[in-house]
Amino acid sequence: MNMYDLIRKKKEGGILDREEIRWMIDGYTKGSIPDYQMSAMMMAVCFRGMNAEETGELTLAMRDSGDVMDLSAIRGVKVDKHSTGGVGDKTSIALLPLVSSLGVKIAKMSGRGLGHTGGTIDKLESIPGFRTSLSEQEFRRQVDEIGLALMGQTAELAPADKKLYALRDVTATVDQLSLIASSIMSKKLAAGADAIVLDVKCGSGAFMKDFEDAKALAEAMVGIGRHAGKKMRALITNMDQPLGDAVGNALEVQEAIDTLKGKGPADFTELVLALGARMLLLAELETDVKAAEERLEEAIADGRALEQLGRFIRAQGGDDACLSDDSILAPRGGCAELKASSDGIIIHMDCAEAGMASLMLGAGRSRLEDSIDPYVGIRFLKKTGDTVRAGETIALLYYSDEAKEKAAEERLASAIRIAESAAEGRKAIILDEVE
Amino acid sequence: MNMYDLIRKKKEGGILDREEIRWMIDGYTKGSIPDYQMSAMMMAVCFRGMNAEETGELTLAMRDSGDVMDLSAIRGVKVDKHSTGGVGDKTSIALLPLVSSLGVKIAKMSGRGLGHTGGTIDKLESIPGFRTSLSEQEFRRQVDEIGLALMGQTAELAPADKKLYALRDVTATVDQLSLIASSIMSKKLAAGADAIVLDVKCGSGAFMKDFEDAKALAEAMVGIGRHAGKKMRALITNMDQPLGDAVGNALEVQEAIDTLKGKGPADFTELVLALGARMLLLAELETDVKAAEERLEEAIADGRALEQLGRFIRAQGGDDACLSDDSILAPRGGCAELKASSDGIIIHMDCAEAGMASLMLGAGRSRLEDSIDPYVGIRFLKKTGDTVRAGETIALLYYSDEAKEKAAEERLASAIRIAESAAEGRKAIILDEVE
Repeated sequence: MNMYDLIRKKKEGGILDREEIRWMIDGYTKGSIPDYQMSAMMMAVCFRGMNAEETGELTLAMRDSGDVMDLSAIRGVKVDKHSTGGVGDKTSIALLPLVSSLGVKIAKMSGRGLGHTGGTIDKLESIPGFRTSLSEQEFRRQVDEIGLALMGQTAELAPADKKLYALRDVTATVDQLSLIASSIMSKKLAAGADAIVLDVKCGSGAFMKDFEDAKALAEAMVGIGRHAGKKMRALITNMDQPLGDAVGNALEVQEAIDTLKGKGPADFTELVLALGARMLLLAELETDVKAAEERLEEAIADGRALEQLGRFIRAQGGDDACLSDDSILAPRGGCAELKASSDGIIIHMDCAEAGMASLMLGAGRSRLEDSIDPYVGIRFLKKTGDTVRAGETIALLYYSDEAKEKAAEERLASAIRIAESAAEGRKAIILDEVE
Repeated sequence: MNMYDLIRKKKEGGILDREEIRWMIDGYTKGSIPDYQMSAMMMAVCFRGMNAEETGELTLAMRDSGDVMDLSAIRGVKVDKHSTGGVGDKTSIALLPLVSSLGVKIAKMSGRGLGHTGGTIDKLESIPGFRTSLSEQEFRRQVDEIGLALMGQTAELAPADKKLYALRDVTATVDQLSLIASSIMSKKLAAGADAIVLDVKCGSGAFMKDFEDAKALAEAMVGIGRHAGKKMRALITNMDQPLGDAVGNALEVQEAIDTLKGKGPADFTELVLALGARMLLLAELETDVKAAEERLEEAIADGRALEQLGRFIRAQGGDDACLSDDSILAPRGGCAELKASSDGIIIHMDCAEAGMASLMLGAGRSRLEDSIDPYVGIRFLKKTGDTVRAGETIALLYYSDEAKEKAAEERLASAIRIAESAAEGRKAIILDEVE
């Protein structure tokens, strides 16, 4: 077998078989296949695509390029959840304790990444003492004992994907559906769960702007998961404006806590219940979405979910005082108000731009080596579809640096459009489902 | 400017402008643009193509990546000729002395290359003493003095093309028309002539198998040449069977000599006259193809062409005794006969396979480090369209190694098809012209 023939085959529209894909990923990971051949292959894939079988095999080959977490010793169905990312996405922090409080076993690996705010790990680290650098043993033991653990992704997880993604990133070959789906899923599969619920975001604040693209990505990932023998479900959800009211790190953790106290924002609560219900179904603890959502609501109402969040925080070295004392995660520094410039209805809020405003305040990273400030961010008092009067506060900006606040406020202001009447109503959170 | 943006632009079907192409080729030659980005670009070009303007600018950028020969001190119109290569192609050896005997100035750079036989340089080196490693000064002086010089291509000629071709060769991105045309033309343009005649071969023994592909390549190269301000003409010629009767190195030189003595094979003589006429036209020494061919025939008939070949050989250190003594370039070793297996008409002779038989005898190279044997090869007594009887000799195989001869004879035999009646007549040598 040689790489030249494989490149030519794909260039001419051929289908790569399992052995060819394994040989290619193995050689690339080891360094026997050079970057310049792999980038030509990736570009050919951008034009020719990969079918479901090829996409599945590519994902498995990348999964097997490094360590694959063995969760078999943990009793029960282990369910994982993945979001393609958006602005104000603190979902895991509320969802995982909620679902695990009902007996679903969750062993979650999470990342830091770049963006408007930190990743789930960064957010959780705004809880004093919270640590995510668990050993695999600690991780598994914690899942077995309390039903939930969360750790940072190790470098040994799907190293082929890491190398390939870095190459695609500099050769304009990122935006190909099969490559995107296999990159995400190779890491998910290496994390070892039996079932995975996907939250594929769609809209101005998401990687996928269009519904059709988001749906295609969801279907590709569900296809890969099933190819690997996993139980899969996916929701396509709205990211046309920030999720919930809070964007920031400590701010978002507080919002997740509030949600488990039953006083979270409606959109965020709806998303958490919808995803949670699918996780209960995959864990075979429920057979009906409606019944599952009711059980989740009960677990919030009777405090079990919050209790489980406390258990989770303590197990990972954190101080759970923040569950009863809101001052711990409260913003520090100044607070500015963004006010409506006219009477009317908010008809659009560019979500990516709102995210940029958060980044400019210091809540996110533009380079991996940047540090984030946990105590800055934005709280929205009004969102798309809401009526406002001139001078009324739309959002609060929490800042540590006045110059940054001015720039962020300007950015946020230009992201919001107010009109005399609404062109369309508020969009639903759950847009579609791939079962 | 950055390479990522250029790759993305081309991937999305955009047009690269002059500055972008120059920046890219300059950066790639210097090493600031890595192979993995350039190979992704080349693959995108394979799918998206390049328009005439882009192709022209790419060629100029590659030409300017190294030395460009300055022939301005030589009086008259300097005319170059290029063939895309085929089996039995000894054209330059007869054509250049013939045309220069009529006053056309020819400063030709030539290569060795891989294939069924050596390149023009290898062939000429079968003349005792002949050397092609001239300095640029010697080269220019010789053109000025006798009207003709030939030297090996220097490494300083279009180094960008050399580097890019090596990359394309291992990334399955060779077979793109604009890239093929610009690669050839960048070297031709760097060689400094004012006008270029192209011989684009078409058929089973050529790089371009189909007439339409050959025509497109001819048009692309003519377009590039004109973009660079050169006078251009191209013939599309038949390479569906070996050119002339001889395939080998010394054997082909002998055939070229015979042709300048007026006793060359009809097909080869026709090609030499046709190309020569176009060179006279480009040199503005004639205005009509027919009149030009007549002048060329006269120069053969009155011995001027052969005399000029002698002058050329002596100027490059060779012994011109071979012009009067046929034993000097005669085959050495054994001679085997390939006989017709049945009565009939030769309806097909796979030209690439015939070339492989020559290579197997030792006349060509499969790797650059291989040495060639000047005194082996094939002489065809019958060609496509000829009637044969069972047992009649079709070809003579001159060999130095009996085992190689057996293998070569078998290969050659399987390349020839004899049928009871001819499906079509003998194909013309000149298939079309791009003016």
